[in-house]
Amino acid sequence: MATHERIETALAVALKRATKKPSPPKLSQALRHAVLDGGARVRPQLCLAVAHACGDRDESELVSATAAAIELIHCASLVHDDLPCFDNADLRRGKSSVHAAYGEPLAVLAGDALIVAAFETLAMCSAGNPIRANSLLVDLAFATGAPNGICAGQGWESESEIDLSAYHRAKTGALFVAATRMGARAMGENPEPWETLGAKIGEAFQVADDLRDALLDTEELGKPAGQDAVHDRPNAVAHLGVQGAVKKLDTILEGAVESIPPCEGEATLQAIVRHQAERLVPVGVARYVA
Amino acid sequence: MATHERIETALAVALKRATKKPSPPKLSQALRHAVLDGGARVRPQLCLAVAHACGDRDESELVSATAAAIELIHCASLVHDDLPCFDNADLRRGKSSVHAAYGEPLAVLAGDALIVAAFETLAMCSAGNPIRANSLLVDLAFATGAPNGICAGQGWESESEIDLSAYHRAKTGALFVAATRMGARAMGENPEPWETLGAKIGEAFQVADDLRDALLDTEELGKPAGQDAVHDRPNAVAHLGVQGAVKKLDTILEGAVESIPPCEGEATLQAIVRHQAERLVPVGVARYVA
Repeated sequence: MATHERIETALAVALKRATKKPSPPKLSQALRHAVLDGGARVRPQLCLAVAHACGDRDESELVSATAAAIELIHCASLVHDDLPCFDNADLRRGKSSVHAAYGEPLAVLAGDALIVAAFETLAMCSAGNPIRANSLLVDLAFATGAPNGICAGQGWESESEIDLSAYHRAKTGALFVAATRMGARAMGENPEPWETLGAKIGEAFQVADDLRDALLDTEELGKPAGQDAVHDRPNAVAHLGVQGAVKKLDTILEGAVESIPPCEGEATLQAIVRHQAERLVPVGVARYVA
Repeated sequence: MATHERIETALAVALKRATKKPSPPKLSQALRHAVLDGGARVRPQLCLAVAHACGDRDESELVSATAAAIELIHCASLVHDDLPCFDNADLRRGKSSVHAAYGEPLAVLAGDALIVAAFETLAMCSAGNPIRANSLLVDLAFATGAPNGICAGQGWESESEIDLSAYHRAKTGALFVAATRMGARAMGENPEPWETLGAKIGEAFQVADDLRDALLDTEELGKPAGQDAVHDRPNAVAHLGVQGAVKKLDTILEGAVESIPPCEGEATLQAIVRHQAERLVPVGVARYVA
């Protein structure tokens, strides 16, 4: 099965479980809207790539569930981040945000239910290896909640003094680190050596996101552009300028490739990271760089 | 250790983990505000009572974690239910609601982080019995998310046509059923025979809550009174009148006591349920009943 298809299939299983009777129909629609059609699936792709590098050849069900769980948490965070009290964004992934389409109550509930679905997806898949599944659940909680996960990361935006390092590590880094750690862990490997790869890719993704937010327009972006400036959020473009940010992105990605631990699929994974890196750089960035 | 102390200790462990460095300070405060000082802890008490009836004499750590996880989910649901887009309640448990004290963004995040903390609490406690811990995690997800959990229950309030039975079963019943099922499961017992007890107590609690909402004032209640009428929510008092609702409460509770499966601590548990039942009935209700 192609990687893309594998991720969509695992997400469909989780969504089918969450939207079956007697779920209220509009909540079911909001859940499908939040997850299907439009995500780049960067984090689950990374998770599967690491699992493959660690020897996943027969498409382990636990690996698929791990990738899906990470993406479900990411979808939940997008739904809640778009709420009026945060970014108040009407557009996401080139279509209406969940609260714009279904109202705030269902957006809050859809985000909550997706967090639950992520943990459920892993717990339901524990039969073959309950100890490993439990470790994966602990990893997922670490990356999602407080004090180290994306909830804590977003929480820094309510502080008058921001710990910038903790902010970025938690808000964007945590789920990328989870993707590499959990990809390895799901294959029975020690997750520690995989942490740097996730952290570096997360850092690169944050810089690329800052560049896209600053350089692309709303239509190209599929979500409201220029939001870092509007919300006065700390970002690489304000800090380093466009050229400085692009240079930083290159340095980080080289560090990411170098950090890949020796493993069966090392060369393939290096190629995947380099390929993903090219997709990260905003299309319009060439006109700003000499 | 007294039951009350056991619950508070287990909650304190979870909170300490979620609020340690590098958590943003205000989010940590919001998390403590949401959980500490003021909860009646009805659901974890029920969970511990069932575990005790099933033979929990040495205060199993997994049982304590189970009770705490259920209460964390309940606290999360209160934080989100109080948001302006739902009940818009400024008062909860006799003090400010989380969004009134810390703002909407931190209330959304605190609710999210508490859901995560609940699953983390169970997953962290799996060492002694990973298979049992995984089953408990599946139970918790069932009671929390969609299609059967409290998220789905709340979701019915966004529908023009409400499936009343599914609404009550999910919105209030799910966590009570989780409390009895998971109390038994944490002790290695079959959870199925314990389901009716949880369902009946959940039903009784809903009727009692409707009575309190209709009969008590905001100060007595510790949260805004008369909300069912304001939000035109289906409720037992509107449907049956005060006397009818009180009679229904009695019938349900008698059914609850009768449903208790034969077990070591059957008599004690019957006494606990009867005692809790007396606490359920609003103080002012006597003046409405002949």
